[in-house]
Amino acid sequence: MTDDVPAAVRDGIAHAVLRALAKHGYAGLTTKKVAAASDKSEAALFYHYDTKDDLVVTFLEWAIERSTDRLTDINADDPLDELFTACEVLLGDTDDEVVRGINVAMMELLSHAPHNERFHTNLTAYERAEIETLADIIDRGINAGIFREVDSTATAAYLLMTADGTAGAVMALGMHDVDDMVRDRVFAYIESELVVEDGFED
Amino acid sequence: MTDDVPAAVRDGIAHAVLRALAKHGYAGLTTKKVAAASDKSEAALFYHYDTKDDLVVTFLEWAIERSTDRLTDINADDPLDELFTACEVLLGDTDDEVVRGINVAMMELLSHAPHNERFHTNLTAYERAEIETLADIIDRGINAGIFREVDSTATAAYLLMTADGTAGAVMALGMHDVDDMVRDRVFAYIESELVVEDGFED
Repeated sequence: MTDDVPAAVRDGIAHAVLRALAKHGYAGLTTKKVAAASDKSEAALFYHYDTKDDLVVTFLEWAIERSTDRLTDINADDPLDELFTACEVLLGDTDDEVVRGINVAMMELLSHAPHNERFHTNLTAYERAEIETLADIIDRGINAGIFREVDSTATAAYLLMTADGTAGAVMALGMHDVDDMVRDRVFAYIESELVVEDGFED
Repeated sequence: MTDDVPAAVRDGIAHAVLRALAKHGYAGLTTKKVAAASDKSEAALFYHYDTKDDLVVTFLEWAIERSTDRLTDINADDPLDELFTACEVLLGDTDDEVVRGINVAMMELLSHAPHNERFHTNLTAYERAEIETLADIIDRGINAGIFREVDSTATAAYLLMTADGTAGAVMALGMHDVDDMVRDRVFAYIESELVVEDGFED
């Protein structure tokens, strides 16, 4: 079982899975390769984890927690500033190798989700949590009179899907011009569709 | 070499790769498994294709051609109707098992693109072609006075990234409520940001 693994060990293992996934992909992954990418022996890994999928799910949980924390820990002056920053976080820093690695790995695990219940459960919960966090920011903006009375969940889902798609083209294919164009459009969308002009609902 | 493979053989092989990818994933794929999913023997496959990646690239080329054709073959009354239909095509029919299979397979191959030049080249060309086709529809709408003078390439990239991201959540995770919400938002975006009201540019 993995419940009693100390946090530092878990983080180290998540990083090792990330490195091993980037190098070998999911199907090429073995506990031996995760051990080679970590400071643990294969025997030490088996002490904590029974199967390869236990290791991958540990990575997934860590990556999801990391992304969720980055969205909920935003320091912002108001919901508009917070929503802009949240979209920046979701679109991701394309120069950050860890961010890129996580995005590409999650894309691969997503493609296995139709046949892997644990990946499916974790990734669905992740998407739902991101939508909820974004919708909560939008709701606070509506309550503060900054945003129009839009359907916050639908708007959140729309923003998240755009960010998810962009990650594919940018993190996996390096289409940086697309990244720039989409960022501009996302921010323009928030300005034109969400923000109440002059403080009045139209 | 694969250049002289007859079209019907190529299509049959592309379908076999699709079925084999859906069952085994890219890394689990072998020519034996593609042969098992087709009406060809492994020897017949090797007659046309030297490596497993030749087979996968054949699938990719077929899937890309299929998607590109579906976008360029739209019969529509005007550029607005054409853009709506193009977005429907890109968002995909989630009940169509072939569409779902292609989307999930392309997601997996996308995750391998950072380390596979042939996948990278084909998938980048595909994204560029889709953006160009959408931008062309938008340009025709601008010229016809139906659409505002937006940056057609940036708007096309934005629409495509939203569709790509939605495919991930919907085709791989089955989040159909997200699909409905995003479709509504995409069409509302086109109406509010592109369409010239009352025939006048604002």
